[in-house]
Amino acid sequence: MITAVERVRAAYARIAQVSRPEVWIGLRPQAETEADAAAVDARTAAGERLPLAGTVVAVKGNIDVAGLPTTAGCPAYAYKPDADAPAVARLKAAGAVVLGTTNLDQFATGLVGTRSPYGAVRGAVDPERVSGGSSSGSAVAVALGIADIALGTDTAGSGRVPAAFNGIVGLKPTIGLVPTEGVVPACASLDCVTVFARTLPEAERALSLMTAPPGRAPSAPAARRPGPWRIAVPEPGQLGRLDSGWTEAFDAAARRLADAGAEILPVDLAPFTEAAVMLYEGAFVAERYTAVGAFVDAHEGSPDLDPTVAGIISRARDIPAHQLYADQRKLADLRTRALASLGDSDALLLPTAPGHPTITEVEADPLGVNARLGRFTNSTNLFDLAAVAVPAGNVNGLPFGVMLIGPAFTDERLARIAGLLTSPPLRLAVIGAHLSGQPLNGQLLAVGGRLVRTTTTAPAYRLFALDTLPPKPGLVRVGEGGNTIEAEVWQLPAEGLGALLAALPRPMALGSVELADGSFVTGFLCEPQAVESARDITPYGSWRAYVAGLARPKQSHCRDAR
Amino acid sequence: MITAVERVRAAYARIAQVSRPEVWIGLRPQAETEADAAAVDARTAAGERLPLAGTVVAVKGNIDVAGLPTTAGCPAYAYKPDADAPAVARLKAAGAVVLGTTNLDQFATGLVGTRSPYGAVRGAVDPERVSGGSSSGSAVAVALGIADIALGTDTAGSGRVPAAFNGIVGLKPTIGLVPTEGVVPACASLDCVTVFARTLPEAERALSLMTAPPGRAPSAPAARRPGPWRIAVPEPGQLGRLDSGWTEAFDAAARRLADAGAEILPVDLAPFTEAAVMLYEGAFVAERYTAVGAFVDAHEGSPDLDPTVAGIISRARDIPAHQLYADQRKLADLRTRALASLGDSDALLLPTAPGHPTITEVEADPLGVNARLGRFTNSTNLFDLAAVAVPAGNVNGLPFGVMLIGPAFTDERLARIAGLLTSPPLRLAVIGAHLSGQPLNGQLLAVGGRLVRTTTTAPAYRLFALDTLPPKPGLVRVGEGGNTIEAEVWQLPAEGLGALLAALPRPMALGSVELADGSFVTGFLCEPQAVESARDITPYGSWRAYVAGLARPKQSHCRDAR
Repeated sequence: MITAVERVRAAYARIAQVSRPEVWIGLRPQAETEADAAAVDARTAAGERLPLAGTVVAVKGNIDVAGLPTTAGCPAYAYKPDADAPAVARLKAAGAVVLGTTNLDQFATGLVGTRSPYGAVRGAVDPERVSGGSSSGSAVAVALGIADIALGTDTAGSGRVPAAFNGIVGLKPTIGLVPTEGVVPACASLDCVTVFARTLPEAERALSLMTAPPGRAPSAPAARRPGPWRIAVPEPGQLGRLDSGWTEAFDAAARRLADAGAEILPVDLAPFTEAAVMLYEGAFVAERYTAVGAFVDAHEGSPDLDPTVAGIISRARDIPAHQLYADQRKLADLRTRALASLGDSDALLLPTAPGHPTITEVEADPLGVNARLGRFTNSTNLFDLAAVAVPAGNVNGLPFGVMLIGPAFTDERLARIAGLLTSPPLRLAVIGAHLSGQPLNGQLLAVGGRLVRTTTTAPAYRLFALDTLPPKPGLVRVGEGGNTIEAEVWQLPAEGLGALLAALPRPMALGSVELADGSFVTGFLCEPQAVESARDITPYGSWRAYVAGLARPKQSHCRDAR
Repeated sequence: MITAVERVRAAYARIAQVSRPEVWIGLRPQAETEADAAAVDARTAAGERLPLAGTVVAVKGNIDVAGLPTTAGCPAYAYKPDADAPAVARLKAAGAVVLGTTNLDQFATGLVGTRSPYGAVRGAVDPERVSGGSSSGSAVAVALGIADIALGTDTAGSGRVPAAFNGIVGLKPTIGLVPTEGVVPACASLDCVTVFARTLPEAERALSLMTAPPGRAPSAPAARRPGPWRIAVPEPGQLGRLDSGWTEAFDAAARRLADAGAEILPVDLAPFTEAAVMLYEGAFVAERYTAVGAFVDAHEGSPDLDPTVAGIISRARDIPAHQLYADQRKLADLRTRALASLGDSDALLLPTAPGHPTITEVEADPLGVNARLGRFTNSTNLFDLAAVAVPAGNVNGLPFGVMLIGPAFTDERLARIAGLLTSPPLRLAVIGAHLSGQPLNGQLLAVGGRLVRTTTTAPAYRLFALDTLPPKPGLVRVGEGGNTIEAEVWQLPAEGLGALLAALPRPMALGSVELADGSFVTGFLCEPQAVESARDITPYGSWRAYVAGLARPKQSHCRDAR
């Protein structure tokens, strides 16, 4: 395993290599970071168990890191915090090394990543496209392989849209699950600290270290109705206009969940999209004025202010409180409708964003393009829901991402469902004791396996009866003289296959098996030496037929004995 | 038992007798009400069990009663509802007959009872004083013995201040416990439907019939720490300036609770009074504009609008939403401090109001006098607390009232504590088997009894050993030749005495016993015939001494037998 110092050096080498200076607002000098890493290595060497030893982290520029200025994307706003935000402190305590603070849409107001006097953050894959925001620098730092994990924040979608645009994972935890102390508020009642990573397990591990200590742990979600995952998707037509190829990519993601055994339930998306419009058009934007309005007014016209952001916040000054009360009531009604729409489904599957604009498109219409981006993300925090954003393939060479949204405190459940997309289920051909009704079939069922179809192998195999308990066959591919052998194709969750492999006894093996249709799937084979003295039962054409044949003579033997 | 029709007739007779037309906005014709009452009587005669049969009810004029205009105290605002508000419908279903709708501070905005184009409601006891508001007519209708119970509403104290000023009980249930459908909102997120009655049991019975059905029942309050009631009272000096004699009356109420066995804990009242000021001075008043602001603006200058109320609501139009967010955050902090201040006490005891102004005083300073009245009530709903207001004696010939305030859903617990004030504990002299350590002493402990002191009777009694099981003495007052007899004085909750009486076997009786200091308390006597053939044990001077004397000979008998 590489040391923390080596990991930090690799990060700075990568920073130099990618040449994306706009990612950072407060990149720390390498010597400082290396010193931190050396301290981590020393603790590890002293026997301390640090779950994040050797993990390098980027922190969004609106989250306090002791010793670095907190800018919120505005030089004139900068202050130097005495202490790390708890979210940062917890990662550091677990051995993470902070590289620095990242660029963002100013005051976390935007979904584009271009609203910053520190420069527009370009997309990791296509620099002519926006990175997404507001957690722009954090997402790109992870996507470009500089940081292992990065902290963002999410009020309207700032922890998810950049994940989608850059092909990485973004966890938007339930409000309150991660402390927001030491975070410059956008809408204080809605803000969440989020995590970016390239893989779901890395993101989940970091999140689990950042959540409130047990004493403050939230109530568990209600027990779910047993049975397969139930995934809500919008009724036909409700996704609206998406970028070219995105509707098909979304349908493919839904199909992958269905293939993995989930039920797909079309539901009414209207309450979600109606609430999404309210986030900026309603009175809720006034909470941004509460946070930084006095500052923005006092610095009117300053080049340190992004004009688009300053306009949004200044205009919020005059929104009347009586409208806020009315909007809160309207929102409560929409939330009731939204939860009714979800019913007992486990999650709502949505595209993370409706499209991925270029920087030029954003410059031409800063408000309009930004507003469209929040169509699917804006309502999540207004409704107090949890969300997980994951990559779901590529369209036209650009990342495409989807979200799973569920009730508060279902964060873990959402990650498990998302795992079906990031680690798609595997197919496994079984030919012996794992066949339906045979002694080891329960192992497949226990890890969530599902019978896909019954077929045979290609006519290229011989089958042997091995001397094992329970009795098992050995499948051996032969150059000539092969036969077809009865096979079942099962589908297993990725993590289920691991459990199966761990329990696999010699001389069994997993390899690639050719089926009758010429396709290859993972299947049970066996070590060659095991068949040397074994009985060749190929003529039966099926382990099941051979076993049945064994049973028949036994029965007649019994009758003889009478 | 009188019939519902007879009760209704008595109500109209009383209405004529008291000559308080300003109490009513929509008094129903007697013929209509009598017809309703006759229908109730018919249902009762048919064998139906109606818990409120023969109960006449007055309903505050901002609560829908089908067939009567809902005015909210503003003629131009009036509309005729198709259906009863659920709170009203539930009382009617239980057999109550609604007399009509009552006067109120317009749009439930006020604590005085004078802000109404239907006239200022005068206090029930002293017509020169205000009735208190906003539920003015409802409180006076109950206090004057017209209605048995009345519905009010409470946002800032409207269900409690009028209770205090008119010497009746007011229950301010936890927000949401009684549906507010069919109620003209004041501050929709804070409003509660309340109950007035002359006694606590009557109010509690009505409330229990109005609360949400079991399916919507709220979560129960946390289990309390065992032990005596713990009653929080403000630290010395924190009550501020009260009307003359009210501080002493408040201290006496606290002492009565202490005498009944409660622990009294001085706590910091500051978070409560700081939040109270925010209700009208902060941004929360904007919720009143949300409710009726458009109407008020459209009717500017109309004689149907109370100018004070219209001014308050119109000025709320321009309160900015960003201030509301800031105030909500400040309120959340104050609530945290307030709950920390209460700690594990069961209730906070407060005067319901700081003083009782005259109508002239209110006319001279409508806003200032009103604001002072809410000092103790304003914060209750802002903090989502429950409250019970009860009479606590008279000062200078006027009613004085106190409140018990506790966490949400502790409504029943608060009523039990309040019961110690409305039904003060009784003192009981015991002289026999109920003495400490004697066989029946457990009966006193079981009903919450507490030993107050040990003394003797006046020298006017003779004691007899009755032929009962367990052995008991009979105490008989004699004209001459009496002696002092050892006695203990116990204190019992009022309801505990009932249980004791119910279990009292012949020939025992409860009567008045003279103690050594010449005072009389309730004590155990016995029917005269029981002592006719009983042994006179007066010379022992004590049942305990007599019993001990019985034991001694027995012991010596045992020794003799060896």
